[in-house]
Amino acid sequence: MPALIFVTGNKGKFREAREILSTGGIEIANKNLPIEEKRGTLEEIAEDAAEQAYAKLKTPLFVEDSGLFIHALNGFPGEFSAWAFKKIGNRGILKLMGGEKNRRAHFKSVVAYADKNGIKLFDGVCTGAIARKVRGTGGFGYDPIFVPKGEKFTFAEREDLKTVLSHRYKSLKKLLEYLKI
Amino acid sequence: MPALIFVTGNKGKFREAREILSTGGIEIANKNLPIEEKRGTLEEIAEDAAEQAYAKLKTPLFVEDSGLFIHALNGFPGEFSAWAFKKIGNRGILKLMGGEKNRRAHFKSVVAYADKNGIKLFDGVCTGAIARKVRGTGGFGYDPIFVPKGEKFTFAEREDLKTVLSHRYKSLKKLLEYLKI
Repeated sequence: MPALIFVTGNKGKFREAREILSTGGIEIANKNLPIEEKRGTLEEIAEDAAEQAYAKLKTPLFVEDSGLFIHALNGFPGEFSAWAFKKIGNRGILKLMGGEKNRRAHFKSVVAYADKNGIKLFDGVCTGAIARKVRGTGGFGYDPIFVPKGEKFTFAEREDLKTVLSHRYKSLKKLLEYLKI
Repeated sequence: MPALIFVTGNKGKFREAREILSTGGIEIANKNLPIEEKRGTLEEIAEDAAEQAYAKLKTPLFVEDSGLFIHALNGFPGEFSAWAFKKIGNRGILKLMGGEKNRRAHFKSVVAYADKNGIKLFDGVCTGAIARKVRGTGGFGYDPIFVPKGEKFTFAEREDLKTVLSHRYKSLKKLLEYLKI
């Protein structure tokens, strides 16, 4: 069977997905396509991106969209997490959270898998809190400021935590179960 | 001649546009349509929205998209200004700008006019600075934190300044000149 394609321009995401899916014997390959990302929920964005990619590649593939939703900021940066990260970074998020006692946040991931039968969505959520400063050098994006619930370390301090607790781990595990049936 | 349609859900924008266009004898009417806003530059967003609206209404109309670009924040909130305003508001912007000496920013407006001949774009820019606190109650959105270049007051303190200096005034004046030819 040819490798399943993961359409993404994010090397960190690809690395994580390869590790998780290989535990179930699924090999993946990376392809970066120009996708016109729509505005909407993570589900809408992922579904639309998978449709665009499948129309071009016509081979089984998946895309993944995710976001960090900070409760005290009405869900900011949410669906625009990647964009906001480029603009204001973790430093900007920590400034916005300055003096804020409610540190609660969650990461959400949506995987959209496309094959000749259509599109299937799988989601995963990881709840936690925003740290008071940047901590750790592992992972990518907002990992250095996100502490998963019940833990003391950020995802960037303990990538092993991320591997088994993360939103992306959960959505990809669901994909894996689906593919193995 | 039937009134020109301004497709917007923003009453503040409609009020400003009516005032500016009436000085040239152009009457406008408001219509709010569900438009699927794409991601991209202000020009791409406005052009795409005008196309969608014209396909539905088939009568001369215009849309307007605008954003506040803060130089020290790499252009944040830019194309996502309306969304960011709902999430973090002026208070969030001021927190992000806390301790920042470079206060420079500009507002940009793009008007997309559609009729049977196609779409024409008109832009307007207003340069200025981000205030150190919220000042004034006029205008809407980021007006209470934006001081136009060479002035001491925010757009919310002096709506008369906004009327003649603003990005939207400039783009709409260009539309007006085009319509009068």
